[in-house]
Amino acid sequence: MNLAVIPGDGIGPEVVAEGLKVLTAVLPQDVKLETGTYDLGARRWHETGETLPEAELERLKSHDAILLGAIGDPSVPSGVLERGLLLKLRFAFDHYVNLRPSKLFPQTATPLAGRPDIDFVVVREGTEGPYAGNGGSFRTGTPAEVATEVSLNTAYGVERVVRDAYARAAARPRKKLTLVHKNNVLVYAGHLWKNLFDKVGQEYPEVTTDYLHVDAATIFFVTDPARFDVIVTDNLFGDILTDLAAAVTGGIGLAASGNINPAGDFPSMFEPVHGSAPDIAGLGKADPTATILSVALLLRHLGYETEAVRVEEAVSADLAERSGARTTTQTGDAIAVRVAS
Amino acid sequence: MNLAVIPGDGIGPEVVAEGLKVLTAVLPQDVKLETGTYDLGARRWHETGETLPEAELERLKSHDAILLGAIGDPSVPSGVLERGLLLKLRFAFDHYVNLRPSKLFPQTATPLAGRPDIDFVVVREGTEGPYAGNGGSFRTGTPAEVATEVSLNTAYGVERVVRDAYARAAARPRKKLTLVHKNNVLVYAGHLWKNLFDKVGQEYPEVTTDYLHVDAATIFFVTDPARFDVIVTDNLFGDILTDLAAAVTGGIGLAASGNINPAGDFPSMFEPVHGSAPDIAGLGKADPTATILSVALLLRHLGYETEAVRVEEAVSADLAERSGARTTTQTGDAIAVRVAS
Ligand SMILES: CC(C)[C@H](C(=O)O)[C@@H](O)C(=O)O
Ligand SMILES: CC(C)[C@H](C(=O)O)[C@@H](O)C(=O)O
Repeated sequence: MNLAVIPGDGIGPEVVAEGLKVLTAVLPQDVKLETGTYDLGARRWHETGETLPEAELERLKSHDAILLGAIGDPSVPSGVLERGLLLKLRFAFDHYVNLRPSKLFPQTATPLAGRPDIDFVVVREGTEGPYAGNGGSFRTGTPAEVATEVSLNTAYGVERVVRDAYARAAARPRKKLTLVHKNNVLVYAGHLWKNLFDKVGQEYPEVTTDYLHVDAATIFFVTDPARFDVIVTDNLFGDILTDLAAAVTGGIGLAASGNINPAGDFPSMFEPVHGSAPDIAGLGKADPTATILSVALLLRHLGYETEAVRVEEAVSADLAERSGARTTTQTGDAIAVRVAS
Repeated sequence: MNLAVIPGDGIGPEVVAEGLKVLTAVLPQDVKLETGTYDLGARRWHETGETLPEAELERLKSHDAILLGAIGDPSVPSGVLERGLLLKLRFAFDHYVNLRPSKLFPQTATPLAGRPDIDFVVVREGTEGPYAGNGGSFRTGTPAEVATEVSLNTAYGVERVVRDAYARAAARPRKKLTLVHKNNVLVYAGHLWKNLFDKVGQEYPEVTTDYLHVDAATIFFVTDPARFDVIVTDNLFGDILTDLAAAVTGGIGLAASGNINPAGDFPSMFEPVHGSAPDIAGLGKADPTATILSVALLLRHLGYETEAVRVEEAVSADLAERSGARTTTQTGDAIAVRVAS
């Protein structure tokens, strides 16, 4: 297994170290783990002005998958690293399935009363929509300024992610798929999504479907999250909903994600949903669990299903026994010990 | 007081009737209430193909304010009534302050454990952003279709709503204002918002400010909603956040809103945040409280502060004593009795 590792900014390096620790512990003896570490993020930008040089992008292609910590730092103008590095990777490697599972583990605290039974997965489109980067500013800085952001949605881009979501729904016991959009206001994009959702649905008669406006969906995330099985949605709605999903399932410290290129043309990338949390960087306070669960997604993507399940079970068992404050390393160690045994 | 009443679709007529009942009960004897009812919504569209004829729009201008029930019906293609009637009203009457208070009343049930102390108000921009209606579809219905949605943000439009939000924050005890956007991805619109937020802030040194990305904001809505005082945000983020806010403060049955034209060039419009709920229309099951609280906002807007407070206190007292199922009329009656006494 040949991985690219992008530790990134803030707590990124700390959590990635624990992810690799668990990965090493769980991999079968005969699988050799090779890693190439990429120095990308705020430090590099300050030093060289580079976010993601072409040569690095080329080199990244040689790996089986990418493990990324976190990108972003207050010392860098907002958007520079996000657009120039993180989103550039997602777009360049055509990570059109941004996969974000949400599960409330038995002993994990949730802000919701009544501890609903939460176990769903959001399939967030990852390569277009409002994230296309197609916007601009005119008469910038004047009272007549106009700033635009263009959401670009192609039948090509929507259909493939919708199809992926149906396949995932069909493979799950409940076989339920919910489309989330805002087609009563964003009528052009919304209707494109809805039409393709209905069209592809004909190939999956066994999957039950429904549609929710994004505003209504947020209500159900807190009043009845158990109703969801698989959700498919656009890039921006998916961004918002998956943070909310993380919050109700015990926090952003546990939320994993995979930026997947299903065709395998380019390496897929796995990262915690959380950011770089510069306020706690280097303090050993960051929870590496989201990264470790992202490693499970990485294992599954590369065909190591048994190992993926072992990591997930180890996390579940560890969560059940956590008490008091633990350091980043202690959590990584505890989970690594479990997967190895 | 001369009101336009648009009962609209689904449960709209039922809840509006209770809103008017409470309004009549609370108004001082010497204030004469005149109303003009407008037949707009699904029925009219089916019959005439009209959503909001110019003549009706003209006639609506003659009123002091508008009370609206709900718009939308599954028998009408998604977007037709929303864009052609509801949003048309908001845009034509330049309702740039979409005001949505969120308060967790003492005895009201919330899905959040620990019953946080929630009392904030969202100032949602109401006339531009992704709601501008500037989008299209090209090669529609073909595998090469491209659908766009253009978010239009003007310095003119952003500055005025930001200024309104600062004024509201400055008038509240905590004097705190949070800007919510996504300026690390939607960099053009996001930077316009952030720059004007910072600029106008210089006129309000007494207001404490912060900035949150919309995804992070949803997390705080469920983990720490007490941190918010006034929030200012764009049209789409405001739509999403206010439904979530409604959910954590006891549900969409209680969430009021005002579509305000602060300059008074056109009548402002007051409506519950909820939709037309066609599944329970006509059953007397709809909770009219959101409409009644919208009437309180209407009263305040027209200068009847004492009466507004009386309605809000009556609702609060009523909520504290609610038990079992009540009909729409029973709830309206109960609150009307309280405000009259
Ligand atoms: C950091 C940011 C660009 C990113 C996004 O908006 O996609 C993050 O919020 C996420 O969800 O992975
Ligand atoms: C019905 C719809 C057009 C409307 C909106 O999106 O603004 C509603 O959700 C609201 O929040 O008032």
